[in-house]
Amino acid sequence: MPESLALSRFDQLAVGQTAQAAKTITEADIILYSAVSTDINPTHLDADYAASGPFGGRVAHGMLSAGLISAVIGNKLPGPGTIYMSQNLKFCHPVRIGDTVTARVEVKSLDPARRRATLRTQCFVRSLIVIEGEALVLVPG
Amino acid sequence: MPESLALSRFDQLAVGQTAQAAKTITEADIILYSAVSTDINPTHLDADYAASGPFGGRVAHGMLSAGLISAVIGNKLPGPGTIYMSQNLKFCHPVRIGDTVTARVEVKSLDPARRRATLRTQCFVRSLIVIEGEALVLVPG
Amino acid sequence: MPESLALSRFDQLAVGQTAQAAKTITEADIILYSAVSTDINPTHLDADYAASGPFGGRVAHGMLSAGLISAVIGNKLPGPGTIYMSQNLKFCHPVRIGDTVTARVEVKSLDPARRRATLRTQCFVRSLIVIEGEALVLVPG
Amino acid sequence: MPESLALSRFDQLAVGQTAQAAKTITEADIILYSAVSTDINPTHLDADYAASGPFGGRVAHGMLSAGLISAVIGNKLPGPGTIYMSQNLKFCHPVRIGDTVTARVEVKSLDPARRRATLRTQCFVRSLIVIEGEALVLVPG
Repeated sequence: MPESLALSRFDQLAVGQTAQAAKTITEADIILYSAVSTDINPTHLDADYAASGPFGGRVAHGMLSAGLISAVIGNKLPGPGTIYMSQNLKFCHPVRIGDTVTARVEVKSLDPARRRATLRTQCFVRSLIVIEGEALVLVPG
Repeated sequence: MPESLALSRFDQLAVGQTAQAAKTITEADIILYSAVSTDINPTHLDADYAASGPFGGRVAHGMLSAGLISAVIGNKLPGPGTIYMSQNLKFCHPVRIGDTVTARVEVKSLDPARRRATLRTQCFVRSLIVIEGEALVLVPG
Repeated sequence: MPESLALSRFDQLAVGQTAQAAKTITEADIILYSAVSTDINPTHLDADYAASGPFGGRVAHGMLSAGLISAVIGNKLPGPGTIYMSQNLKFCHPVRIGDTVTARVEVKSLDPARRRATLRTQCFVRSLIVIEGEALVLVPG
Repeated sequence: MPESLALSRFDQLAVGQTAQAAKTITEADIILYSAVSTDINPTHLDADYAASGPFGGRVAHGMLSAGLISAVIGNKLPGPGTIYMSQNLKFCHPVRIGDTVTARVEVKSLDPARRRATLRTQCFVRSLIVIEGEALVLVPG
């Protein structure tokens, strides 16, 4: 297993533990995500259309930012080997090109019998919460 | 607004209405999604590591397949202009390279007073449900 | 076949029918298109070289913008299932990074015996025609 | 001007002169081209859908292969600095994932007074012509 992506074994997890990672959302991310997802909504791709829309300009796909949560879970907490069981997402605010999104994961509760952890999952742009939710993961023995 | 991706106005929505789209998940999608999301988990990128893991090989990021749901919502039902408020996802089965994922969206309930629709959202590989969940969207007037 | 990108059956086509879609051309598009096409002309990739060229800066590949025509044909009019037989393109004006290109397709004539449609195909940046041409497509029964 | 992309000056062009380049069309090209073009037609992206279509499987976007012609014109003959005025394309045969497409350009006629060249443009997969057409270019002095 890659060293710096070390899996926290279940018994090393503790309620309140956190991890985070941040990324600046670029036009390139939006173009590539439109390819991967096939989501070609003009809200994301057409600056003229988006200028007259509710956000006054192009915004990133909500699920693009949500992917950063999955990255923190898979890369850091609990890390590689974790099995992603569920994810709830509330999209609170739009993310614009050039915004830096920080995804933050916090261990909310632990179920040792089933080796499951419930995680509080949030994305921020500066101090603004743009996505809020919860994930359930399985941490194999 | 593009003509044939025309936004279904709220009063054109009906409970039971469905839309879907499908895409074959390729290695290129996994590479591009890892770039966009920063999710560099070896489960997705390292064939040797993944061969000895629980799925016996590389699998796609769960959130990659989930993005197809967002595409159906944004492209088709309700379509461009829709505001994505929340999405719940249960990851039921892994998706492998070469699998064709069909995302299906169905109108489950409507709240005319607040112009909101609750959508049943599912992803299939053949007849197997790989993701199951629910979305809440706002359809502007 | 995806439902809301439903193929207009040949007998649903009428002369004068139109469809369009728009996209803002980004640096990422130019980089990705250079990768796909192998067109590494410095006019598109080298800002210093292009600054002293006839357009005073980098411009998008003409065939990149032309691809939006194909997208309208394949996604909307006539839609999925259409077989693209020919395309004539006249490149009238350069497209710069940040320009939003609208591709517009109009049914010009119909040949019911052979299930063929001749389409007028144009790309605009605001009101300026940047590409003009004609396509011939086959719409299977 | 980059050395290996040297512009053929107009008076160095001769009728019958040729240049070509080839590229293997991969799944990655198709995914990236779908992003750049917004052409998400299932013929290109959905293996299950395409398997039952007229070509018995996924095919590349016709305009993706056509881009190789533009690359030969812009990189080699006449090379950087050439202004692309028009391109006619006849799509003769589908291109599948894994096919190697060779684009070939031949000088067909020259108009010294206006510094224009008419080019015969073809794409082959092995000995099969998949695209055939003609381009008109301006070669600045």
